[in-house]
Amino acid sequence: MNIIEIINKKRLNDVLSKEEINYVINSFIKDEIKDYQMSALLMAITINGMNFDETLFLTDAMLKSGDRLDFSGIDGLIVDKHSTGGIGDKVTLILAPLLASLNIKVAKMSGRSLGYTGGTIDKLESIKNFNVNLSNTDFMNQVNEINLAIASPSSNLDIADKKIYALRDVTATVSSIPLIASSIMSKKLASNADFIVIDIKIGAGALIKTKKEAIKLAHVLINIGKHYQKNVSCILTNMNQPLGYAIGNGLEIKESIDALNGNGAKDLMEVVYSIASIIISKAKNIDLKSAFNEAYQSIQNKKAYNKFLEFVARQNGDIKNIEVANDIEAVISDETGYIIGIDADKIGKLVLELGALRLNSDDIIDHSVGIVLSKKVGDFVTKGEVLGRIYKNKKSIDLNDFKECFTFDKTYNNKDKTIYGMIEDVK
Amino acid sequence: MNIIEIINKKRLNDVLSKEEINYVINSFIKDEIKDYQMSALLMAITINGMNFDETLFLTDAMLKSGDRLDFSGIDGLIVDKHSTGGIGDKVTLILAPLLASLNIKVAKMSGRSLGYTGGTIDKLESIKNFNVNLSNTDFMNQVNEINLAIASPSSNLDIADKKIYALRDVTATVSSIPLIASSIMSKKLASNADFIVIDIKIGAGALIKTKKEAIKLAHVLINIGKHYQKNVSCILTNMNQPLGYAIGNGLEIKESIDALNGNGAKDLMEVVYSIASIIISKAKNIDLKSAFNEAYQSIQNKKAYNKFLEFVARQNGDIKNIEVANDIEAVISDETGYIIGIDADKIGKLVLELGALRLNSDDIIDHSVGIVLSKKVGDFVTKGEVLGRIYKNKKSIDLNDFKECFTFDKTYNNKDKTIYGMIEDVK
Repeated sequence: MNIIEIINKKRLNDVLSKEEINYVINSFIKDEIKDYQMSALLMAITINGMNFDETLFLTDAMLKSGDRLDFSGIDGLIVDKHSTGGIGDKVTLILAPLLASLNIKVAKMSGRSLGYTGGTIDKLESIKNFNVNLSNTDFMNQVNEINLAIASPSSNLDIADKKIYALRDVTATVSSIPLIASSIMSKKLASNADFIVIDIKIGAGALIKTKKEAIKLAHVLINIGKHYQKNVSCILTNMNQPLGYAIGNGLEIKESIDALNGNGAKDLMEVVYSIASIIISKAKNIDLKSAFNEAYQSIQNKKAYNKFLEFVARQNGDIKNIEVANDIEAVISDETGYIIGIDADKIGKLVLELGALRLNSDDIIDHSVGIVLSKKVGDFVTKGEVLGRIYKNKKSIDLNDFKECFTFDKTYNNKDKTIYGMIEDVK
Repeated sequence: MNIIEIINKKRLNDVLSKEEINYVINSFIKDEIKDYQMSALLMAITINGMNFDETLFLTDAMLKSGDRLDFSGIDGLIVDKHSTGGIGDKVTLILAPLLASLNIKVAKMSGRSLGYTGGTIDKLESIKNFNVNLSNTDFMNQVNEINLAIASPSSNLDIADKKIYALRDVTATVSSIPLIASSIMSKKLASNADFIVIDIKIGAGALIKTKKEAIKLAHVLINIGKHYQKNVSCILTNMNQPLGYAIGNGLEIKESIDALNGNGAKDLMEVVYSIASIIISKAKNIDLKSAFNEAYQSIQNKKAYNKFLEFVARQNGDIKNIEVANDIEAVISDETGYIIGIDADKIGKLVLELGALRLNSDDIIDHSVGIVLSKKVGDFVTKGEVLGRIYKNKKSIDLNDFKECFTFDKTYNNKDKTIYGMIEDVK
């Protein structure tokens, strides 16, 4: 086979065969196909698309490119959750102990931040001594004993996805549905869960810009899941403002603790409860309403919070010692009016500037810095009120850049929903 | 400016600005834009296209990326000719001395072979001691004194085109009209001729597959020329079989000498005379028919041949010493019938296999090897007759691969033309 002919086929909007797709992935991870050839092919795929079979073949080739986790030592069903990437998205930190407190097993491999979106592993590492590197045996034992473990995957898991994602990030080929779907599903399938909920974030700054695209992606994800006998559900959520109030590693841990104590932001808890309800109803075979009640009670009676404390202690974390910067600057509003939008993407860029996120995979991040919003979309603000607080350490930002993230208007017609919908099955 | 945003714009089929295109070319030649980013952009351009302004801006940026030739020391008008790349295309070797013999100044920078198509410089180097490296002063003096010089350009001429072409060749982005047009015109404009004729080869194995595409390309080339006050004409010619009989460096010099002595192949001479007629009529302000007569007489009375000898001697070449291999193998036809096609692209691949062409720019080529056809499209062949002869040296080829280049049929309806048309001006 010849990579130039394969690229040319996709350039001409032809369908690639399973053999061709396998050849591409296997040769690319061996560096026999060069980055500049792969990026040309990725662009042709981004523009011309891929049909479902091609997307499935691509997922399968990527899945087989690396190791797969063996969770056979875990008793019972395992659930997993994935987000397409949101600013201030700390849902996993609240959802995982919540589910575990209800005897649902959460065996989760999480990623680190790359670009404007954070990673659960980085957030957990803002807790002093928290150990994200567990052996497979320790990981499985922990899930069996306390229903919950969150760890960083070995570097051999889904090698192709890592190598392709690094290239997509710098060649304007991130927003392709077949490439997004194969990236998510090859990772999720390698992690071997039984129930998977995927939170598709929709917004100007997100990978997915419109509900139409999100629905298309959801269908592809669910159908790939079906092929592997995995139960995949999708939830479509709003990313037209950051989720909750805090953005930054230690700051998000603090906000998660507040949420686990019953003081969670409305939009954040809506997402947590929606995903929790889907998983609980499936795992326990009960209706969504009863599932929601179990989730809600788990927060109210602190079972979820206690599970979080147990989980942190089990992975050696010192919950009393969370990195948060002391140099705090309040940003005052120059305007009066309703907030009708908070540019999540720009907030992400500012948090990156502060040092909380990484642009390159070997950047060293600062767990203590970030932003805490004081106001959210729909809030009325009077000139002179605090819009948010910047938590700084070594780097600082232009406060006007932060102010410019907010859009004001005289009225607010509460049309923005947090949850757009849920897609559980496709014909 | 940000390359990712520029790539994304073209991915979305938006129009790039002059500033963005300048940024891309200037940053790419400084390696600030990476190959994998450039190839993603080239693919987006290949699929989504570029409008005329973008193509002009690209040409201009490429032109300005390198040195430009100063031909101010040459008296009178200078003509140049370019081919989009044909197999067995030795037109320049016959046309240039023909024009020079009629007092038309030909100051030509020529290239070397890359891929399946040969280069005039390589062909000339099969003449012992032929010097292709002339100083600018020697080059201009020679044109002033004998009306003709052909040399290899310095490596600083059109740097961007070289770097982009190397990438296009391996990423399936060669067949894009704006990319072809900017590549040709940035080279031709850097070489600074007054009249330029571009021979657009059309065929399954050529860059341009259809007449429709060729006409589109011709219009872009002519309009770019107009912008720089250069008179550009295009001729559309058939590349559904090799041009003439010989393919290979020394072998093509031998065939050119035969042609200059009045024994040229019909298709080859049709192209030579057509281009000659356009140039002579423009340079001397006479009609095409009179121009053709002058060209024809120059061959008949050996003026063109004598000019060729003068030119070769002036550049130190020993015309009695042309490299041609001694190991010759005749290939016999297994079939009887009319030849209705000779796959030029496959012939190119075989000649590459023999060592006459280079796949990478630093490959060392063998000037002595190649193929000489005995039959052309339209000829009737009887089983057992010779189809062609392979001139070998260190490498050999499978003779069946050569036989497979020929397509036979019981009848031949002489529909194939050598010259499809000529485009001199566009509104």
